[in-house]
Amino acid sequence: MIKVGIVGGTGYTGVELLRILAGHPAVKLTAITSRGEAGQRVSDMFPSLRHRVDLHFVAPEDAALEQCDVVFFATPNGVAMKQAPALVAAGVKLIDLAADFRLDAATWEKWYGMSHAAPELLAEAVYGLPEINRAQIRKARVLANPGCYPTAVQLGFLPLIEADAVALDHLIADAKSGVSGAGRKAAVANLYAEVTDSFKAYGVGGHRHLPEIRWGLSRVAGGRNIGLTFVPHLTPMVRGIHATLYARLTRELSEADLQALFETRFAGETFIDVMPPGSHPETRSVRASNHCRIAVHRPQNGDTVVVLSVIDNLVKGAAGQAVQNMNIMFGEEESLGLTMTPVSP
Amino acid sequence: MIKVGIVGGTGYTGVELLRILAGHPAVKLTAITSRGEAGQRVSDMFPSLRHRVDLHFVAPEDAALEQCDVVFFATPNGVAMKQAPALVAAGVKLIDLAADFRLDAATWEKWYGMSHAAPELLAEAVYGLPEINRAQIRKARVLANPGCYPTAVQLGFLPLIEADAVALDHLIADAKSGVSGAGRKAAVANLYAEVTDSFKAYGVGGHRHLPEIRWGLSRVAGGRNIGLTFVPHLTPMVRGIHATLYARLTRELSEADLQALFETRFAGETFIDVMPPGSHPETRSVRASNHCRIAVHRPQNGDTVVVLSVIDNLVKGAAGQAVQNMNIMFGEEESLGLTMTPVSP
Amino acid sequence: MIKVGIVGGTGYTGVELLRILAGHPAVKLTAITSRGEAGQRVSDMFPSLRHRVDLHFVAPEDAALEQCDVVFFATPNGVAMKQAPALVAAGVKLIDLAADFRLDAATWEKWYGMSHAAPELLAEAVYGLPEINRAQIRKARVLANPGCYPTAVQLGFLPLIEADAVALDHLIADAKSGVSGAGRKAAVANLYAEVTDSFKAYGVGGHRHLPEIRWGLSRVAGGRNIGLTFVPHLTPMVRGIHATLYARLTRELSEADLQALFETRFAGETFIDVMPPGSHPETRSVRASNHCRIAVHRPQNGDTVVVLSVIDNLVKGAAGQAVQNMNIMFGEEESLGLTMTPVSP
Amino acid sequence: MIKVGIVGGTGYTGVELLRILAGHPAVKLTAITSRGEAGQRVSDMFPSLRHRVDLHFVAPEDAALEQCDVVFFATPNGVAMKQAPALVAAGVKLIDLAADFRLDAATWEKWYGMSHAAPELLAEAVYGLPEINRAQIRKARVLANPGCYPTAVQLGFLPLIEADAVALDHLIADAKSGVSGAGRKAAVANLYAEVTDSFKAYGVGGHRHLPEIRWGLSRVAGGRNIGLTFVPHLTPMVRGIHATLYARLTRELSEADLQALFETRFAGETFIDVMPPGSHPETRSVRASNHCRIAVHRPQNGDTVVVLSVIDNLVKGAAGQAVQNMNIMFGEEESLGLTMTPVSP
Repeated sequence: MIKVGIVGGTGYTGVELLRILAGHPAVKLTAITSRGEAGQRVSDMFPSLRHRVDLHFVAPEDAALEQCDVVFFATPNGVAMKQAPALVAAGVKLIDLAADFRLDAATWEKWYGMSHAAPELLAEAVYGLPEINRAQIRKARVLANPGCYPTAVQLGFLPLIEADAVALDHLIADAKSGVSGAGRKAAVANLYAEVTDSFKAYGVGGHRHLPEIRWGLSRVAGGRNIGLTFVPHLTPMVRGIHATLYARLTRELSEADLQALFETRFAGETFIDVMPPGSHPETRSVRASNHCRIAVHRPQNGDTVVVLSVIDNLVKGAAGQAVQNMNIMFGEEESLGLTMTPVSP
Repeated sequence: MIKVGIVGGTGYTGVELLRILAGHPAVKLTAITSRGEAGQRVSDMFPSLRHRVDLHFVAPEDAALEQCDVVFFATPNGVAMKQAPALVAAGVKLIDLAADFRLDAATWEKWYGMSHAAPELLAEAVYGLPEINRAQIRKARVLANPGCYPTAVQLGFLPLIEADAVALDHLIADAKSGVSGAGRKAAVANLYAEVTDSFKAYGVGGHRHLPEIRWGLSRVAGGRNIGLTFVPHLTPMVRGIHATLYARLTRELSEADLQALFETRFAGETFIDVMPPGSHPETRSVRASNHCRIAVHRPQNGDTVVVLSVIDNLVKGAAGQAVQNMNIMFGEEESLGLTMTPVSP
Repeated sequence: MIKVGIVGGTGYTGVELLRILAGHPAVKLTAITSRGEAGQRVSDMFPSLRHRVDLHFVAPEDAALEQCDVVFFATPNGVAMKQAPALVAAGVKLIDLAADFRLDAATWEKWYGMSHAAPELLAEAVYGLPEINRAQIRKARVLANPGCYPTAVQLGFLPLIEADAVALDHLIADAKSGVSGAGRKAAVANLYAEVTDSFKAYGVGGHRHLPEIRWGLSRVAGGRNIGLTFVPHLTPMVRGIHATLYARLTRELSEADLQALFETRFAGETFIDVMPPGSHPETRSVRASNHCRIAVHRPQNGDTVVVLSVIDNLVKGAAGQAVQNMNIMFGEEESLGLTMTPVSP
Repeated sequence: MIKVGIVGGTGYTGVELLRILAGHPAVKLTAITSRGEAGQRVSDMFPSLRHRVDLHFVAPEDAALEQCDVVFFATPNGVAMKQAPALVAAGVKLIDLAADFRLDAATWEKWYGMSHAAPELLAEAVYGLPEINRAQIRKARVLANPGCYPTAVQLGFLPLIEADAVALDHLIADAKSGVSGAGRKAAVANLYAEVTDSFKAYGVGGHRHLPEIRWGLSRVAGGRNIGLTFVPHLTPMVRGIHATLYARLTRELSEADLQALFETRFAGETFIDVMPPGSHPETRSVRASNHCRIAVHRPQNGDTVVVLSVIDNLVKGAAGQAVQNMNIMFGEEESLGLTMTPVSP
């Protein structure tokens, strides 16, 4: 059994990790920390976990995390990087669901507005998008779990960029997220009465996932520069990201060619489902599961390819992908504990 | 492996049965019928089942249902009773998620407006509320799976009536259901733009679940008459029933006594969770799971006891309870395939 | 023109007051206060008011409220009672949308947990339910605008109690409210991802609207005691209250008698709409309007009468009723500025 | 008073027309037709209109529409064109909210799959986007009210194209609509349980609003060809369209230049609100009102301009714009009856 600790389990990513890990046959949940909630039963805060998770929150200093095999950080940005060196030194693997180990140090410091506390671990860290990076993940000590938008967007652009089929200077990612992506913190902007029955863009001027996507796609593109316009939107739903991607073809590829390109690229990927030609995947078709469903279109036979990519932001966009990475890091079957069927309706 | 057939798998109850059975370790899904959709892949209609359920819909006459061990009917009222005799004669067990095998024949015919096609099987049929009826379920050939409202309401009143603690002539069940309870049929009244951001009662004059609840509670009360006012309401959510139950105490029972009464009655019941005193269970705390969570209150120390009972109408109120009954009928562990953690948020 | 000031205009009640008053032909909006937002344009906080409301928030001490004809308090409980004496002394009429001038002093202090700062004004204050109290409202200097639940519940029980037709010792009010009733304050419990697709009761042990309803109905009942069980529920919608009321008939009244009783009682009431027999009013049928729609049922010809009463909690349950009261207090036509058609869908 | 008839008033566009016209001071509602509902009170179908609209539906042949001053068609495509010649001959002005009088005949027949019944009236018809076409609207006998998507998209691109500031060969319109846009017809795809808590694109291969937008923008561009990729999406909300528009700048324009361009273009337009720099308009900020709010961005100072344009699809995208056009056609003030403040929350 893999002994698992969780730091910061009071947000949506944390409770989703608990939901998944509670049903994972190779995991023993050992400790979950929260300074604010220390002493409280986890299931008193999250009644959905009653009789499934019997832990209490403990203060970080009482958690004995160094005795875990792996520790997940479901914390705000800037927390994991401070605790990482001690844990790594103790032989504990670390999976950070926040942004501390993504990007390079210079870009990170620019977008996150702090200096990095563990730049050498940042340099060593592996970016955990298994469909791109599986071999390195296997050996990772510090794993940077990708952001939700970056997961949906990168997976959608991936075959096109690897095949050098589109102009890299003018990619557009119009992405729509459910509200759980904003986290479980008290904020007027995320109240029910503010969010429901309305739709808006945000962060058009610059969202932190923009550099992450550019950086990831640039690596796929052999280091070439990525000209990306990324507009995230808030959608009145809980879970789900729908990325609508636009790119200009640089060579003639029929819709059938594009379909074959995607199917070939993702053949054998358990969690990537290339939908039949002409499909429009719905976010609910992946709700509460680790799947990414993708459809590729070439409208009106024009020069613009449109990719539709949907995930559950809390699963493939966060906790599920983290568990997928854990499975790889510990030599388990990649889908272990992740075979749940999406919940729909 | 239990060979399972499903008749009528194109509604919400059907797709939920498929979701649950797809992950059930002792089940082999053998056939699913739909006259209208014969030939179509199940997962083309329900993309959430892609790579989970590989069956096609077949016409009823091509389904070889008599070779199944058990057949679930997720059909409109009046279908199962016609096919039941032949299946039972062939040794197939039958679980009806519609109403054909609930009530006695006279009451049934009055409320459902047809004559019953298999009155002798109706007389033999077992009402599948395991927390009341487990022993008979074990031996049932024809099982009547309870309605969604009747499940939530009966479980909530059960300890009070068994303990003869409340007046039976003036019970009130104010129940609120998510919209999936109305089924997956094209109807203006169930359109998104008709239902969302609104709330209404319906069927105040008389809903078909009223006689079912009265009949069930009367059996619990040793045949005494039940005076029940039942008002169902449509709530803008997909899944969930919240029953708010009111009864007048006939003897002094403190809130602690009431709490103990409920805890004792449901001790050992895997799927019934009596919440701590003062709780207000939310429907989302049971979403996509087979649990029923119950809280009991005695407001202002008055003579009125208030019980709050929540279920997922598609699971404990339909497909999950049906699988729970199947497990009992086939000697499996009662919770087999039903251990999924609720999905929240 | 009536010169109007608003104290505390940053909540949902405040913005709704602004929406209504912006279109009121006899009102001149003069000042709106907020200590926290002083200097900000109102329409920067509420873009729906752009080009409709050109005021800035001002600090209370800069508002010159004593030069208004009337001041609305859309503040937390305990604010209006402190500012009331000075305003009343200056000849300004005061309409409090919070609870400061409801109830008698002893009950108020018990339920609100503070001592009252203006008990003599509390004694003088008029409870602003026009359908009960119109004559006194006309002369009021201090008006207590009723709570949202109390409005829906009292209007529904009113004809039955006035006609002495039901047992007063066992009334039940099962009420469901949209989330805007919880106000516009940062709180995890009211986040979109906490509220949507879920349903729950709250305050079963005792909600502050319970004594208000009991007190109001007792006055209708000539001072007799009211035995009321009141259970409020949170519904995943923004606006709307649906009160489902249960009472035991003490004398024979057919459904037609009951219908006539309600129609007669509310004949001539602009904002009370007694629906045809057998109706189930939806909250959306009154959305963004000052109507209360009511239906009365006697299910199964039993001894229990069921009343369905719906309002928009922000309008007839708060801001609209406050403007209705203002119209009465200033001798305007009662419906002036309140003739908007409900928004549906 | 303008005598108004409505053909086909049982859909969402129809009920919204009724809501607006019921409060219009210069309109006398004369007749509303529906073959299926003839004889029914309008307010029995739409309780929100009780005591506001006292008409009954009448069969088309009984409606005496030729005695109206103007007839609105809120019908499916293909209805208005058949009745238009007789009405126009009788001197009745006609406003079609469907597509019959948009586009040229050849394009129309290609996309709508029928031959046109009144090609000479189609040639004469005026496209009713007042912000582009006000002078012609004034004299129109047959008015083609624009589609909802085309309204939001054209208004957003308009200043850029008129200023010849963007490349016309690669415009992208990523548009999100509330569900009321799909109409009030029984269809499984639009059920609450299918739509809520999910998000999807549709019609990526080709939506009927694509040629309408291309045709409209091409006229703005002096007949030049428009290369447009248009992807509509279904959003779990009732009302609102959010168009996110992407275009490549062909000359240097700072964000301040772009802001000035938009503000200058729409100066004096009552219903167009250019938001301050950096804004992200929400659809709820225009809910139930005739406004279009627009923000313009140039992210990261790149070569891509992003325009955010929001309307209420039932108002500025349908019924409200139709009334705005009626006002122009009859010499009334353009905003008469359209001054309602948006409803938010």
